[in-house]
Amino acid sequence: MSTPQPGVITCMAAVAWGAGEALVMEEVEVSPPQPLEIRIKVVCTSLCRSDLTAWQSLASPPIFPRIFGHEAAGVVESVGEGVSEFREGDHVLTLFTGECMTCRHCTSGKSNICQVLGLERRGVMHSDQGTRFTVKGRPIYHYCAVSSFSEYTVVHSGCAVKVSLNAPLEKICLLSCGVAAGLGAAWKVADIAGGSIVVIFGLGTVGLAVAQGAKLRGASQIIGVDTNPEKSEKAKIFGVTDFINPNDYDEPIQQVIKRITSGGADYSFECIGDTGMVTAALQSCCDGWGVTITLGVPKVKPEVTAHYGLFLTGRTLRGSLFGGWKPKSDLPLLVDMYLKEEIQIDEFITHNLSFEEINRAFDLMGEGKCLRCVIHMPK
Amino acid sequence: MSTPQPGVITCMAAVAWGAGEALVMEEVEVSPPQPLEIRIKVVCTSLCRSDLTAWQSLASPPIFPRIFGHEAAGVVESVGEGVSEFREGDHVLTLFTGECMTCRHCTSGKSNICQVLGLERRGVMHSDQGTRFTVKGRPIYHYCAVSSFSEYTVVHSGCAVKVSLNAPLEKICLLSCGVAAGLGAAWKVADIAGGSIVVIFGLGTVGLAVAQGAKLRGASQIIGVDTNPEKSEKAKIFGVTDFINPNDYDEPIQQVIKRITSGGADYSFECIGDTGMVTAALQSCCDGWGVTITLGVPKVKPEVTAHYGLFLTGRTLRGSLFGGWKPKSDLPLLVDMYLKEEIQIDEFITHNLSFEEINRAFDLMGEGKCLRCVIHMPK
Repeated sequence: MSTPQPGVITCMAAVAWGAGEALVMEEVEVSPPQPLEIRIKVVCTSLCRSDLTAWQSLASPPIFPRIFGHEAAGVVESVGEGVSEFREGDHVLTLFTGECMTCRHCTSGKSNICQVLGLERRGVMHSDQGTRFTVKGRPIYHYCAVSSFSEYTVVHSGCAVKVSLNAPLEKICLLSCGVAAGLGAAWKVADIAGGSIVVIFGLGTVGLAVAQGAKLRGASQIIGVDTNPEKSEKAKIFGVTDFINPNDYDEPIQQVIKRITSGGADYSFECIGDTGMVTAALQSCCDGWGVTITLGVPKVKPEVTAHYGLFLTGRTLRGSLFGGWKPKSDLPLLVDMYLKEEIQIDEFITHNLSFEEINRAFDLMGEGKCLRCVIHMPK
Repeated sequence: MSTPQPGVITCMAAVAWGAGEALVMEEVEVSPPQPLEIRIKVVCTSLCRSDLTAWQSLASPPIFPRIFGHEAAGVVESVGEGVSEFREGDHVLTLFTGECMTCRHCTSGKSNICQVLGLERRGVMHSDQGTRFTVKGRPIYHYCAVSSFSEYTVVHSGCAVKVSLNAPLEKICLLSCGVAAGLGAAWKVADIAGGSIVVIFGLGTVGLAVAQGAKLRGASQIIGVDTNPEKSEKAKIFGVTDFINPNDYDEPIQQVIKRITSGGADYSFECIGDTGMVTAALQSCCDGWGVTITLGVPKVKPEVTAHYGLFLTGRTLRGSLFGGWKPKSDLPLLVDMYLKEEIQIDEFITHNLSFEEINRAFDLMGEGKCLRCVIHMPK
């Protein structure tokens, strides 16, 4: 590229200094992009439950100080050496799990788990295991190799995807994680057959996106399970036909579901991040061909436990990361579907907040009072 | 049918009076077949690991006195009211999980878990929850609705399948459970793709039948894992290309397998009946598309436990009961394949014993010194 060597940018970022501590607006230094990296001016970023879970660090090792945020849309500010795919001004979505396009998984038709740029959990960049942020010289860790709670961020060029200039960044940022994850779990991973009975545990953004995917695939009954009665109305918009609040029953929820479905659902989805509910989801499926898809990231106990008999009688348990989508290859198609009004995104946005209000987004999500809060960065 | 009403038959059966206690040859009274049942003169029955596990009753409620045995071939002696499918003299295999041909599962193309005649665990007949055996008037429980360790037994007509008169009963009795279960797990449930890497935990009859199925499906590498070094030679006959004894390594077996397969197998099979090994089998599979099939019936801990991350990164855990075969519909095809020498059965038979020697079969299996002991009933 012909751009002159970019320098350090000093800008504002919301830094998490410790587990569960309110984010602090700090002046951070953002390094120039290293080879094969790009620097992005973040335009909009939404808060995802995984940010909150990692910030609380109840089930994962605490990595602090850190800049969270991984569901984002922005504009390329500069590119590092060797980057030919992007140029300044491109509109992009960030990818918390990348796609190198060359590893055994990326070249297979079977996997979206890139072996080079897959989920990064240690808070560093893939290329040199270093960080691109400092506050007064002190390195600040990344999150999922994205860290979008900063006016500018640096990501590997395999961890972003170029999208249409026509697509509104303040909406499509939701495709960067949750909405795409749910849609794909129903559509691509479970590959729901028409006329099926589907049960979804947890009607947050991911669960409701599963409902949307199930509806698009022609499911005949979509049962949504949530302890928050306020979810009931919203759920209908995304195709949920039956809302069940476990608190309304004296018996275990899996018994309720087995009863109303005459033996169990064809598919069940765990979208809460509660490994105990994975067991309930398996128990809610029918013998013979019941499929349980687990998408949630556990807040506490990371082990799934289930009686072997659930499997022996024909059930399948499968995980879904980012809905099985190959992020670079598939996301532009989802953006196009949104532009053609084939999928809904706007309905997931319950709050629009300014960057300064970011801690409110954490509060709202912690209290179950939002689906997606879109955080608008300063112009 | 025109046969006169059959009466009670008094014959010899090997009765288990208590968990782990040597079977005792007893004179038993075998009731005539009730409506939709048939009475079978057992010709040959082989000992399966599940018999041993249920006899030990370490993980299941003890149900005694009981007549074990569920892998058997015989000749129909008489039929109950309403049975038109069988007649006296028909050669049959017994089915520990039946096929009613009419329930939602039997009529689906997706399940072999009959909702009417599925796996019976309480030791009674499906139709009236009673037994057909007594010893001096005391009821004796059935096992898996088959109870073939008796010269005569009564089964539901949906729990037997007619086979070719040309097929040697002393061989094909193995298709009644273990060999078919293993073959189908590889072939039908996992649906192994050509060129795949397969790892099998436990090289008993079921594990070796999985190997045979994997070989037939064109797997390129079939890794067999067993702590018994004597299994190594036998394993080659069934297609195992690499024999691994976990005792030869200081590191966990899943690490060994990940190393030699450069990231994990495409498919892994748990054929030991150790839920801890289900976890190891999941860990031995690759990210992205690794599939673990669990077939074993646990001897002790019945819960499968696994870190959610194994699923999130693209693994699938699926159970296989009787290899996914619809027993009545599919077993005759396997018998034909055997007659055409397309599948091996004879090589699984390590011992031929008389009925009186039945406790020796239990000893041999307990000591890991046999694959299949075929027990020949008195003529």
